[in-house]
Amino acid sequence: MADPGALRCNRDRLWASIIKMGEIGATPRGGVRRLALTDLDRQARELFVSWCEQAQCDVRVDQIGNIIAKRPGEDANAPPVMTGSHLDTQPLGGKFDGIYGVLAGLEVMRTLNDGNFNTRAPIETVVWTDEEGVRFSGTLASGVFAGVYELKDALAKTDREGITFGEALKEIGFAGNAPVGGYEINAFFEAHIEQGPILEAEDKQVGVVLGAQGQRCFAVTVKGEEGHAGTLPMRMRRDAMVGAARMVNAINGIAFKHEPSPVITVGYLKVRPNSRNTIPGQVVFSIDSRHPDDALLAQIESEMRTACEDIAAALSLGVDFRLESQRPTVRFHGECVGLIRDTAKRLGIDHMDIYSGAGHDACQLVHKAPTGMIFVPCENGVSHNELENAKPDDLAAGCDVLLHAMLARAGAVTVHS
Amino acid sequence: MADPGALRCNRDRLWASIIKMGEIGATPRGGVRRLALTDLDRQARELFVSWCEQAQCDVRVDQIGNIIAKRPGEDANAPPVMTGSHLDTQPLGGKFDGIYGVLAGLEVMRTLNDGNFNTRAPIETVVWTDEEGVRFSGTLASGVFAGVYELKDALAKTDREGITFGEALKEIGFAGNAPVGGYEINAFFEAHIEQGPILEAEDKQVGVVLGAQGQRCFAVTVKGEEGHAGTLPMRMRRDAMVGAARMVNAINGIAFKHEPSPVITVGYLKVRPNSRNTIPGQVVFSIDSRHPDDALLAQIESEMRTACEDIAAALSLGVDFRLESQRPTVRFHGECVGLIRDTAKRLGIDHMDIYSGAGHDACQLVHKAPTGMIFVPCENGVSHNELENAKPDDLAAGCDVLLHAMLARAGAVTVHS
Repeated sequence: MADPGALRCNRDRLWASIIKMGEIGATPRGGVRRLALTDLDRQARELFVSWCEQAQCDVRVDQIGNIIAKRPGEDANAPPVMTGSHLDTQPLGGKFDGIYGVLAGLEVMRTLNDGNFNTRAPIETVVWTDEEGVRFSGTLASGVFAGVYELKDALAKTDREGITFGEALKEIGFAGNAPVGGYEINAFFEAHIEQGPILEAEDKQVGVVLGAQGQRCFAVTVKGEEGHAGTLPMRMRRDAMVGAARMVNAINGIAFKHEPSPVITVGYLKVRPNSRNTIPGQVVFSIDSRHPDDALLAQIESEMRTACEDIAAALSLGVDFRLESQRPTVRFHGECVGLIRDTAKRLGIDHMDIYSGAGHDACQLVHKAPTGMIFVPCENGVSHNELENAKPDDLAAGCDVLLHAMLARAGAVTVHS
Repeated sequence: MADPGALRCNRDRLWASIIKMGEIGATPRGGVRRLALTDLDRQARELFVSWCEQAQCDVRVDQIGNIIAKRPGEDANAPPVMTGSHLDTQPLGGKFDGIYGVLAGLEVMRTLNDGNFNTRAPIETVVWTDEEGVRFSGTLASGVFAGVYELKDALAKTDREGITFGEALKEIGFAGNAPVGGYEINAFFEAHIEQGPILEAEDKQVGVVLGAQGQRCFAVTVKGEEGHAGTLPMRMRRDAMVGAARMVNAINGIAFKHEPSPVITVGYLKVRPNSRNTIPGQVVFSIDSRHPDDALLAQIESEMRTACEDIAAALSLGVDFRLESQRPTVRFHGECVGLIRDTAKRLGIDHMDIYSGAGHDACQLVHKAPTGMIFVPCENGVSHNELENAKPDDLAAGCDVLLHAMLARAGAVTVHS
């Protein structure tokens, strides 16, 4: 085979690897419980390392536990083209979130081996440590690699039992010697399940990820006055529940007004005193608002704040509308996004542009290298759940896009064998 | 003094008695914690008995612990005119709820003594056991007296520790020998603080209580589907919180539509899973609806049910709207209500018709005798609270109405001394 454009990954091998990896920490309902820096995480890492070594890669572990499997290039000095994701899961997670991205990287290297292709630049597949952050802090290790966080701060982070990240790494034998980052990367690509329902609903195999939505979270406190449910006439009430209800509804209306892009959720709400026969004196609720455009996210904040203040004033209630946290929008690199889109098109794969609702290691890597992400559909949009599922054909389609995007960046060199 | 119409109660003596009684179980913030059938309840009962004996009353205790202080009439066979309320309090209660009605009855008897007036029919002031029902069950003892409940069932009721009502009565020495009820009552009057803000807002000293509102309580369960706050587009959501918010607002609107009479409250609301970044899959909330007209209360139920079902359907949510408890409207006896109204008018006391939002012993007595209630204002409408307060002048005005209503039923006989 002399035309690298004809290369395709091995669908069944990719699927079998995912299933095999899913046996480590498998739960009865078909999910995976494999928390970062546990013995199960160690087993998964060792399986990955053994597969990479079988694929003739050079494997190293850096000081924050990231595993980097390198398939050397013809030009040893060329910055590598990197891909990868994570092997750790949520407490009740699935077989695909993170794992797919790691094993798609492995499948790219295996496919190149099968076709006897070299690349000009090296290719690296990386396992980022503790992406989920269940025990320490999410995307911390990829953040250190990208220069966002300091290594020593990360290693000193403690879990609820006071064990440090550094100690936990040593415990599972993955406190490596390699420096964390510190070298140039040609590009970083991450393949991942969408974790949402859009691709499935639109019947697309690949999502060209433009970026990750910005997020602003608020705590809203509505202050009324407690009173007896049986004796206080309606017109004399200052009912925090009624105020909160109108605010929730207004906030929902603002999300629809700015369709299709924003998602706004009131997920948490607490009533005081929360007694059947007492008019609520206080309600606290959360707002989680996300939008791919920071300016619109700011405008939405302003509209929500005004709506809450107007409703409070009309009902003689007090309101405290407070920003709790924010994460700016991430935009992936134009070249990488365009390359993924063109590659999908060239391969005849149905695709669409999409934003990521969640954060990923790739959102850290943007600070280090040109970065892009490839989404594939997951069943019913379900993720962070034992029922998480995806189709072998879709996973293979995403992997083919990854393969050819990486080849385009790394430069394919046919090896006459 | 030969004209009974000129009789007035002793404002300062009534106030001093209330203050004195409030010392038993006094809390630092000016309230009272005197739970039924505790040693503090015993102390309060013994103080009341000693005051009644000083007022030359015959005191008896019945088998459910009700204390009945009788001021004999000229006609020993005439059914007595009765008044009274309770001496027990809420866990953090005030000095007036219940206590005022008992001590107003005592003040009526003391005032008749001062004026040297006899009555044709006897006058009885009663302390009903455990009106609040904090430990056993509210208005149980007055309910037995009125024939609503069986004595043996009431005595067998247990508290959380398994102690029976009967045992608790013995423990404080108030398991009496007198039969519970079983004799004819001419009329029953109960004086009470309003426990609401209406009289104060309307600047009236006396409320002529027409009855007690009927009450229907519901549990509403809104069923949606959980989803990721960051990835599920607005149009694909089945958000139980948004549904519940619209329902709460619609229910509030229904209350205002039927103004001024109904009070409808959503006091309790619980979200599942109640996490900032998860779209709520379920919300359960309570509705407490009250109205003095049972037919309108039923209509309001139907309107609320339809509103909730319509909102659920529009949002593709499920809804379960379930009646949890109901208490029919109580109407006080036309003769007693008219007598209270006429008496207030004759005494030149500012008064208005009013409904009781809460239940009272008088609501049980309607099953036994012509019954009426007299409300007086309480500060800011606050009750079941240590800050409960009332004005000596208002308490005296209510007591004067009680005195002359009872005199009208009992028949005043001047005694030339």
